[in-house]
Amino acid sequence: MSVPYKIEASEELLVGGQNEQTRASAKVPIIARQFVSERALKTLDIVEKFVEEECIPADPIYAQQIGEGIANRFSAHPQIIEDLKKRARELGLWNMFLPKNHFKEGAGFSNLEYGLMAEYLGKSHIASEATNCAAPDTGNMEVFAKYGTQEQKDKWLKPLLAGEIRSAFLMTEPDVASSDATNISLKMHRDGDHYVLNGSKWWSSGAGDPRCKIYITMAKSDPDNSNVYRQQSVVLVPAETPGVTIKRMLSVFGFDDAPHGHGHITFDNVRVPVSNIILGEGRGFEVIQGRLGPGRIHHAMRSIGSAEKALEYFLARANDPRKKPFGKFLHEHGVMLERVARSRIEIDAARLLVLNAAMMIDSKDAKFALKEIAEAKVLVPDTLLKVLDRAIQAYGGAGVSQDTPLANMWAHGRTMRIVDGPDEVHLIQLGRNENKKGKFFLDKIEWQKKKSEEMAKSYGIEKRDILQLDRQHSKAKL
Amino acid sequence: MSVPYKIEASEELLVGGQNEQTRASAKVPIIARQFVSERALKTLDIVEKFVEEECIPADPIYAQQIGEGIANRFSAHPQIIEDLKKRARELGLWNMFLPKNHFKEGAGFSNLEYGLMAEYLGKSHIASEATNCAAPDTGNMEVFAKYGTQEQKDKWLKPLLAGEIRSAFLMTEPDVASSDATNISLKMHRDGDHYVLNGSKWWSSGAGDPRCKIYITMAKSDPDNSNVYRQQSVVLVPAETPGVTIKRMLSVFGFDDAPHGHGHITFDNVRVPVSNIILGEGRGFEVIQGRLGPGRIHHAMRSIGSAEKALEYFLARANDPRKKPFGKFLHEHGVMLERVARSRIEIDAARLLVLNAAMMIDSKDAKFALKEIAEAKVLVPDTLLKVLDRAIQAYGGAGVSQDTPLANMWAHGRTMRIVDGPDEVHLIQLGRNENKKGKFFLDKIEWQKKKSEEMAKSYGIEKRDILQLDRQHSKAKL
Amino acid sequence: MSVPYKIEASEELLVGGQNEQTRASAKVPIIARQFVSERALKTLDIVEKFVEEECIPADPIYAQQIGEGIANRFSAHPQIIEDLKKRARELGLWNMFLPKNHFKEGAGFSNLEYGLMAEYLGKSHIASEATNCAAPDTGNMEVFAKYGTQEQKDKWLKPLLAGEIRSAFLMTEPDVASSDATNISLKMHRDGDHYVLNGSKWWSSGAGDPRCKIYITMAKSDPDNSNVYRQQSVVLVPAETPGVTIKRMLSVFGFDDAPHGHGHITFDNVRVPVSNIILGEGRGFEVIQGRLGPGRIHHAMRSIGSAEKALEYFLARANDPRKKPFGKFLHEHGVMLERVARSRIEIDAARLLVLNAAMMIDSKDAKFALKEIAEAKVLVPDTLLKVLDRAIQAYGGAGVSQDTPLANMWAHGRTMRIVDGPDEVHLIQLGRNENKKGKFFLDKIEWQKKKSEEMAKSYGIEKRDILQLDRQHSKAKL
Amino acid sequence: MSVPYKIEASEELLVGGQNEQTRASAKVPIIARQFVSERALKTLDIVEKFVEEECIPADPIYAQQIGEGIANRFSAHPQIIEDLKKRARELGLWNMFLPKNHFKEGAGFSNLEYGLMAEYLGKSHIASEATNCAAPDTGNMEVFAKYGTQEQKDKWLKPLLAGEIRSAFLMTEPDVASSDATNISLKMHRDGDHYVLNGSKWWSSGAGDPRCKIYITMAKSDPDNSNVYRQQSVVLVPAETPGVTIKRMLSVFGFDDAPHGHGHITFDNVRVPVSNIILGEGRGFEVIQGRLGPGRIHHAMRSIGSAEKALEYFLARANDPRKKPFGKFLHEHGVMLERVARSRIEIDAARLLVLNAAMMIDSKDAKFALKEIAEAKVLVPDTLLKVLDRAIQAYGGAGVSQDTPLANMWAHGRTMRIVDGPDEVHLIQLGRNENKKGKFFLDKIEWQKKKSEEMAKSYGIEKRDILQLDRQHSKAKL
Repeated sequence: MSVPYKIEASEELLVGGQNEQTRASAKVPIIARQFVSERALKTLDIVEKFVEEECIPADPIYAQQIGEGIANRFSAHPQIIEDLKKRARELGLWNMFLPKNHFKEGAGFSNLEYGLMAEYLGKSHIASEATNCAAPDTGNMEVFAKYGTQEQKDKWLKPLLAGEIRSAFLMTEPDVASSDATNISLKMHRDGDHYVLNGSKWWSSGAGDPRCKIYITMAKSDPDNSNVYRQQSVVLVPAETPGVTIKRMLSVFGFDDAPHGHGHITFDNVRVPVSNIILGEGRGFEVIQGRLGPGRIHHAMRSIGSAEKALEYFLARANDPRKKPFGKFLHEHGVMLERVARSRIEIDAARLLVLNAAMMIDSKDAKFALKEIAEAKVLVPDTLLKVLDRAIQAYGGAGVSQDTPLANMWAHGRTMRIVDGPDEVHLIQLGRNENKKGKFFLDKIEWQKKKSEEMAKSYGIEKRDILQLDRQHSKAKL
Repeated sequence: MSVPYKIEASEELLVGGQNEQTRASAKVPIIARQFVSERALKTLDIVEKFVEEECIPADPIYAQQIGEGIANRFSAHPQIIEDLKKRARELGLWNMFLPKNHFKEGAGFSNLEYGLMAEYLGKSHIASEATNCAAPDTGNMEVFAKYGTQEQKDKWLKPLLAGEIRSAFLMTEPDVASSDATNISLKMHRDGDHYVLNGSKWWSSGAGDPRCKIYITMAKSDPDNSNVYRQQSVVLVPAETPGVTIKRMLSVFGFDDAPHGHGHITFDNVRVPVSNIILGEGRGFEVIQGRLGPGRIHHAMRSIGSAEKALEYFLARANDPRKKPFGKFLHEHGVMLERVARSRIEIDAARLLVLNAAMMIDSKDAKFALKEIAEAKVLVPDTLLKVLDRAIQAYGGAGVSQDTPLANMWAHGRTMRIVDGPDEVHLIQLGRNENKKGKFFLDKIEWQKKKSEEMAKSYGIEKRDILQLDRQHSKAKL
Repeated sequence: MSVPYKIEASEELLVGGQNEQTRASAKVPIIARQFVSERALKTLDIVEKFVEEECIPADPIYAQQIGEGIANRFSAHPQIIEDLKKRARELGLWNMFLPKNHFKEGAGFSNLEYGLMAEYLGKSHIASEATNCAAPDTGNMEVFAKYGTQEQKDKWLKPLLAGEIRSAFLMTEPDVASSDATNISLKMHRDGDHYVLNGSKWWSSGAGDPRCKIYITMAKSDPDNSNVYRQQSVVLVPAETPGVTIKRMLSVFGFDDAPHGHGHITFDNVRVPVSNIILGEGRGFEVIQGRLGPGRIHHAMRSIGSAEKALEYFLARANDPRKKPFGKFLHEHGVMLERVARSRIEIDAARLLVLNAAMMIDSKDAKFALKEIAEAKVLVPDTLLKVLDRAIQAYGGAGVSQDTPLANMWAHGRTMRIVDGPDEVHLIQLGRNENKKGKFFLDKIEWQKKKSEEMAKSYGIEKRDILQLDRQHSKAKL
Repeated sequence: MSVPYKIEASEELLVGGQNEQTRASAKVPIIARQFVSERALKTLDIVEKFVEEECIPADPIYAQQIGEGIANRFSAHPQIIEDLKKRARELGLWNMFLPKNHFKEGAGFSNLEYGLMAEYLGKSHIASEATNCAAPDTGNMEVFAKYGTQEQKDKWLKPLLAGEIRSAFLMTEPDVASSDATNISLKMHRDGDHYVLNGSKWWSSGAGDPRCKIYITMAKSDPDNSNVYRQQSVVLVPAETPGVTIKRMLSVFGFDDAPHGHGHITFDNVRVPVSNIILGEGRGFEVIQGRLGPGRIHHAMRSIGSAEKALEYFLARANDPRKKPFGKFLHEHGVMLERVARSRIEIDAARLLVLNAAMMIDSKDAKFALKEIAEAKVLVPDTLLKVLDRAIQAYGGAGVSQDTPLANMWAHGRTMRIVDGPDEVHLIQLGRNENKKGKFFLDKIEWQKKKSEEMAKSYGIEKRDILQLDRQHSKAKL
């Protein structure tokens, strides 16, 4: 079998010398290229090769190593992921997500540079984990690195950075409208040197994995605080703490995402030492706001990669000689080609929006990029789902089944419109920010109208569109 | 009356010290900023001030100076445009469109830099003409500069660069499907030292203006050439040439766009000297392809400006205290705010696509940026029309009438999906280009599947989703 | 010239014996057919012939008889409309809009039957007026017939029914959010035997026509009434009353709709006798609610006709042998055919919605059909605009210009999303009505869940999706 | 627990006497009501009660009785379905799908009447099977009833009508573009008194159920026939025939639809007696065309019910007091209410389209209703998916998980755009049919233009939009 990508020699990247296809580094949009170091470009090509040649072929192996039966699936740890992790470290692909201007622990790339890499990671189910760049660990590691005490870092950040354990972020709750985080209501009170937690969480992604050892947990510690943004705290809860029970695993359009999974977890008098607090009591909002920004960009860029993969599948099908309805290749049906083109446009526009947001973060921090991140958060999943829907339709039955990755990608993509805040919340916040300029625009337009009237006078012009039709005297005067 | 923008001191750009509003140079997307020179940034602010303070207030004056009655409207030359041109030259705003790396005659900006300026020019009906950056003169000047003989340049380019005359580009024809340029069929044959032209053209934009002196005209000179891209020539036809008649002016959704206008022109044995040929016989396609690229970017960026203006109007209305249906400002109705947010996202994504395309042109030439230009050509008008539609709906009756510029902007925006090639043509070309990679993707996916099978063997895995249900013996085997 | 439609012999309705085309009566959706009388079916065919053979060819004549120049255009009364009215009366096509179960003055058809006819009237600019079925006269006549005193009927209804005068309905105002009718604020107070009116109205459609003699006017007579729906009155204002001035005419996307037009009218101490009140003081809302229902159905069905006409134009273009981009008829481009098909589906669905609403009105009255009317009011213009947009795109430049009726139809169609209440108002009311069932559905779903739990017990089933993962002891229990 | 629906007394259908909610018979669109017999109306109410009170609560029981593990899931036969079948027969709800004017074996309802019932069946996963109205048995029974020999009927139709066995329809194949049925290529040749079959099929829905005993199979019996519509035959293959293997079961967005399922089946020298042919060799297309029409209407009406259920869930969530983001019920957020309203409109329009199609079938047969069926086939799934997407978004995480039926409904709804021919095939056929009128419309419009010119002459009018701008002499002539 000939090898399509050769990691050692990125110059000969192509299958059988095909010229249409260029390597990842050559496909960076021109407007972003100058901001990507030579080292990052080289790494990007290695990421592409690693994903296309090693991770994507491994995706089905991983699926099969998980096994069958819900109890098995959530205690499995596929061997292949460890083999890929080993390989990734050899290739220097490890912890690329930690941005260089904020963290010394990472691989030394900017958010923009990592964003480009994340696009390729998004093409494989397991490439992110293989390079220790998988959510929710990435955001959790950022929390530890930014806000953790030395003790917390030693205990949790170190093994996370080494890929030895995994972690979960427990925020969403089943009994409240979690899209408004002030509603979070897991009970937390201090009892001596401990905090005691009671209540339940769900959509605790990653909690299914037996290697998931630590839950970063948002709880309501001060429900009576007049400032609703000071009622919450974030506290560390080791997975093995007595009183913690994973009640059940949630499915996503029929997929269980094992062993990672999405847990529904109950807390029954769960006690953790007070030293497990992050940043301090009442500072929960501070923690989650610091956490979410870059993570949304990672999701967005992986989604761009997912959209590209969908388009690749679409194009493969359009050129499949076995699939010729009405005597023509799918690509000879104009409707299909127009969908391909629209997909190309929409993906390219969405990618630029994400890269621009990544640069905003790089230039300062995630808070500074609030608008840009929200824009990407809303546009990208919408784009991804459109492209996937077209690809699925081109495949027909194969598109909705296990024979292509499209249905699974769609299910995952659909959740992107919900996780980390549903579209509606981001849109209303974006809308409110835009609206702040409304009064200025109202004044400006008024000013321009007045200036126009003054100009009219200076030119000796009377307003022309006044046609007085004096019906009483049955005649029109211009 | 207090002045909102002070051209001399760009630091004090704001109305009444409002902080939400920043000047143009500060709103350049971060990913593009580094490619904009200090001089261009400064000019950009001056463009914004000139447009907002002088051109937009002058728009209604211009409309009123055109007068009434079709004969008047197409012989008018409003005084205000000459006053604005004088002012623009004082401010150094002249011929900014001619890109520095290709033409020495221009103001020395890149396509990216001019693109940013064009956004602001797009907010006023007359700002482009006031700065001698109006279509179709811009593209026509590029044709002269790139392909003209010295004699042609002296006679036509010089007065065009000086803003003394105007020009038209005659391509589209009423009796063929002009979306496919090979159909162009104005007859052209050589008779001694002259070419003789017969037939008709329409959508000859700008031909209504009495100052329009020269028609750059595409004709079929060699209908029997086996190469359909060598059958056409481009030739110069002075407007006053005997046999040329503007049969009528076309309207756009009820607007006549006087005095500029869109002409339907007939050619009845029109004779021009053979020296009027551009580049040479049979090279028409070469000329039009070289012409159209940057022009599409100009259109696109002006459309971005138009979309921004629509959003400004939308926000102004949303904050108009006289317009409170059901006791609430429009911005207090969630539906409106979501539309504002979606508009913001869509405009920002579209702008990045255009700027990226401009950079592609800057990096080499328009041909190199074929894909990027086509992407912008399709996405931007679609975005503009969506934003305009929302703004119009927020205004109700005022939105469709002469009381806002929105209806006129919409009519103009709608033509953008047709001029310079309809959406469908660009989509099919984009689709075909993408499709070239189809075979590669098909092979790659096959390769990945085979590799996966090999990996499965090496891990001792049998394919798991095979459930053999042997109905004959009524039992299932996993 | 052969005649395509022969009114006398509806059996031979077709051009040149073409078999694909059937007459109007044969195209009534099967689900509605049984509700249409033989007489109505026959009239329907006559309407179709009259519109296709006499009105549509007359449309350009009408446009040309209006002339040029704003003063001329609003004093013109094209002769052709009187000739068509004479012809329509000969054919028995007069006042078909007045429904038989509510008014004795009409032609004796149901709303459903007239709805079917209105579809054909909607294909010509002037067919509605030619048959005395034009808005706003239709709604105004209904007001007179339902609520008028005998004196009011004699003076205004009689000449309106005879097509001798025209009328306007003055509701919308420029200075308030008229989408919420409680905001209407034209001042009205009683002074002896007169009411005195002050303020302004706009979008007074039809007021431009010199034959428009009476304004049915909504005004605020009791601004302090605690019931906001009792503050308004509707009063008759003859057009020639001193103090009434048509300040100017409004345009719609550049069209002035002359001579009908849309007036901006000022009231300066306008005095009318108290006997001019309709129904009584404070009963304005009652009047306008009784007026609007059927009118919305008329608009909707005319819009269906407009959509059909757009599709006819689209198909004509798709088969125009002069218009073959890339060597193929437009109908050979799959993208075009798919758009044709989608248009067909959307029009057919929208028509059924309107006909169902018409039947609801027929079965009782417009109030009973509130939901159905609102549904049609929102869906139909949206459908019309989509179909028109596709047709325009197929025509390219001809589609936006005066060479097809499409641009004018689009402009008119766009206003349909605004007039008689913008989409948003109808949607919010529909939404609120639907939401009344929310509590019931919540209870029902809860009840079903509880029942399910009881059934589970009776079948000895434990809930299956509970996977308890006891991380403390590192094991999973199913 | 109080009972919301009492089957015995349909007058007291409501939960707690709520007045907003009315029973099914009262919700029949007015335009369809007259075509529904009293008996059908009464049955409709019983269907509604049976579904809401007995089937929907049983849905989770059914899911749990299937069990876990792929081998188990496809050998399970949940007891509850037999209990429900018994109950349905008691209530007289059995085989309602067989239309009265075509089959004597059914319950004696028209397609329109059954369509109304199917809407309610579509609200439960198992109600269709419980009433012996489930696909693909329904279509298969129609095939037997229409085309079967007495022997075939005795052997297969009888137990199918009695609900004792189930069946599958094997058409789609993995290795060809099955959207074009002429591509079907399962090999079939005659060998003595037997046909021998070789090849594979997939998306053989229902084949997973151990009670599925007979496969109606389309095969290519005469590949060289010059008429591509005569190359196929339909033949009966008992599930237990040697050589038949269910290779694997396909999933739909992660759902396996067990035990019904979607099989991938291989044929290895499968021999069936020649008496197993349906209708005769080469008549396969005849059989499948006769089969598909009504089935598409059933699917469509069940999808309408699914959409109604989605809207019910949406409204329930919008009124859930535990889910109040930003301090307000979801229904107090205007964006949500507008989505509710749009859903209401779209569902109502789509339902009318289906009912109209059902009436067309009733009036003659499915072939006569080709256009109407195709319209419903395309519009309904599109509508369903839009409504479901909005409901899912309102639920957030619960919407994509097993906690609501929405995700499963979505997955199933998505396949509706593919099964029985993808959208694109129906659109192209619809488009082609519409296009047949194109030439007529082209001629008509030409005729109208000529007539208009004649009228212009008779009125003494010259064409007005000709503005001759004679540039040579620099003046305009009107």
